Amino acid sequence: MASVMEARNLGRSFALESSDLGKINSVQAECYRLPLEEALVDAAHGEHKFFEVVVCRIASSKGYEGVGYTYTGGKGGRAIAEFIRTDLSDIAIGQPASDIAGIWNKLQTKLHYVGRGGLLSFAIAAMDIGLWDLAAKALDKSIAALLSHGAPATDVETYVGFIDLQLDGDSLAQLAERALERGFVAAKTKVGRDAMAEDVSRVALLRSVLGAGRDLMVDANFAFDVERAIKFSQSIEEFDIKWFEEPISPDDFEGYASVAKATNIPLAMGENLHLVEEFERAIRYSKLTYLQPDASNIGGITGWLKVAEMAKNADLKVCTHGMHELHVSLLASLEEPGCLEFHSFPIDQYATHRLELKDGRAVVPDRKGIGVEFDFNLLKPHRVS
Amino acid sequence: MASVMEARNLGRSFALESSDLGKINSVQAECYRLPLEEALVDAAHGEHKFFEVVVCRIASSKGYEGVGYTYTGGKGGRAIAEFIRTDLSDIAIGQPASDIAGIWNKLQTKLHYVGRGGLLSFAIAAMDIGLWDLAAKALDKSIAALLSHGAPATDVETYVGFIDLQLDGDSLAQLAERALERGFVAAKTKVGRDAMAEDVSRVALLRSVLGAGRDLMVDANFAFDVERAIKFSQSIEEFDIKWFEEPISPDDFEGYASVAKATNIPLAMGENLHLVEEFERAIRYSKLTYLQPDASNIGGITGWLKVAEMAKNADLKVCTHGMHELHVSLLASLEEPGCLEFHSFPIDQYATHRLELKDGRAVVPDRKGIGVEFDFNLLKPHRVS
Repeated sequence: MASVMEARNLGRSFALESSDLGKINSVQAECYRLPLEEALVDAAHGEHKFFEVVVCRIASSKGYEGVGYTYTGGKGGRAIAEFIRTDLSDIAIGQPASDIAGIWNKLQTKLHYVGRGGLLSFAIAAMDIGLWDLAAKALDKSIAALLSHGAPATDVETYVGFIDLQLDGDSLAQLAERALERGFVAAKTKVGRDAMAEDVSRVALLRSVLGAGRDLMVDANFAFDVERAIKFSQSIEEFDIKWFEEPISPDDFEGYASVAKATNIPLAMGENLHLVEEFERAIRYSKLTYLQPDASNIGGITGWLKVAEMAKNADLKVCTHGMHELHVSLLASLEEPGCLEFHSFPIDQYATHRLELKDGRAVVPDRKGIGVEFDFNLLKPHRVS
Repeated sequence: MASVMEARNLGRSFALESSDLGKINSVQAECYRLPLEEALVDAAHGEHKFFEVVVCRIASSKGYEGVGYTYTGGKGGRAIAEFIRTDLSDIAIGQPASDIAGIWNKLQTKLHYVGRGGLLSFAIAAMDIGLWDLAAKALDKSIAALLSHGAPATDVETYVGFIDLQLDGDSLAQLAERALERGFVAAKTKVGRDAMAEDVSRVALLRSVLGAGRDLMVDANFAFDVERAIKFSQSIEEFDIKWFEEPISPDDFEGYASVAKATNIPLAMGENLHLVEEFERAIRYSKLTYLQPDASNIGGITGWLKVAEMAKNADLKVCTHGMHELHVSLLASLEEPGCLEFHSFPIDQYATHRLELKDGRAVVPDRKGIGVEFDFNLLKPHRVS
């Protein structure tokens, strides 16, 4: 074949130069249920005691291999693994491993009736990330280098995303102090308690611990309606908030614009938008300042790059949600990267390398492939499917 | 307990009068892959050789049982069954079996991150329909009687929905003639071929076979863009078309309005809207005349009733997509029922009773429960999960 496969429909048209990576001849999926050290609480999902990682292993007829993955907040992982093992696998087997964009389109189209977001976006993600891993390894490049026009960035801006709605006073202050000690220079806190005054005082406390000049964000996990979101937003304007994330339901695209008009705090969302079409709608209606696609639930690296391109065209910043160990490389490939969330689900504790910080910034790995290699000895005891 | 549980948030607030149906203590799910006699073709999904039925069996601590189900076009069924067996079951076990609306809300909320439509809408459907079956059987009523304010209708308007994009000329005419012989008085055909002239002549042929005065609809399975949809619509106006279904992508809500403004053929959609919020959006933007919720993918009877209520408030007609053996009873419970699709996936061939026609209308069953009892001897050879 020795062809140059274009990554079609990615907007940016970089070439996946490949001397035939072979045809996909094996797809496997496994689900791991991983305990959190302490229960984490947010307004939408309540208490998290576990998160899940679904691994997708892909092999091609030329002997190349890739390992992709997605994650969940503790629910849905076994169904995602089953979806990959059955219908996604049926569609992918026999396709050229280098035709990542073509496979992405086939999966979206052939599974549209039961798809259009939801579990399919996670399942495609695990497979798509595995295909990029396979391609980057075959081409002996890091994913950041493969995706960049020139040389990728060597580090990116980052912040720590707390899941801390359960914490107050001293325990909240200690959480922030420990983060500063670990080298973080920016943080995001959960809001959405029943008593708004408690949310305001928690934000005030964090601002005082961080000090002026460090970035502080808030995240309501859509706990509010428009009226309450506006009232709360106005109550915390004095604390110099970088963004207000998911103040209201991710389905109320127009409501976001109403909130945006009533406050000077910029708005952010993305973790619950699992279709490119939903990001289009958000750009059109929601007056966001930051888009936060998560490769694990927007159909992988392919979906993430589509959103990044849309953001660029709309002059919006791309920040990320979750899976920092992978997103660090995706951000590094952009001309104007936004900010990386260092997420509270510690996926990289089960990998051979953890994300490194240097001078408050996240270091971009230059390992071949996606830069995330799981340590299956650590994962193995937690396998549930 | 001996309480009257209100089916909350259904809009219409009928009472599910129950003397304690017990707590859910068992949830089981099975997937059956069922062959079609001949391959059926539409523009979006290509060839169908199979469809799937996922059955959900629920039992309560008081000894009541219910059997619900959903179906797919041949893909996704095993993942749906796995989702029910794992996360949905975890949430439902221990809940009062009569609190159908409360369970629906819990499933949507707790699985939101991996849900918001997609497979979750199908999985909730199977469980929700099983809960309604359990409740109706416990109360010794048909689902139509349970849902109706007064006596339910005894028959409803119906049409046969062909999946016939592969047929032309004589074979298409014969399909329609056989339908007339079986007693149907209205039909819907698939369109969306590469050559628009072929679509037009197929519609013309069907109109001539049906004769004037019988309803004829067309369904593009979103094969067109706005421009082509307008052109095609104008090309078939002369054939007295009752509705044009899914001319364009179900995500292009505003595009539907552009089509509606340019033609006198009313528009319909719904089979790909799997969230109540999406129907709200369609009502707001799309200038539809007919809404077509499918209980199998809008979260079951509970989701379907929410859409029916929204349709009533917006002065739109509710017609249905798929699973005619169940929808006949749901339509019968409405004050102003729309039209039942007799679908080409013959689910009721695997049930103890098939849907009956009388004078061209569908007969509403008065069996206890949802009125659909599977014959597991027929299903058994097709079990895949």
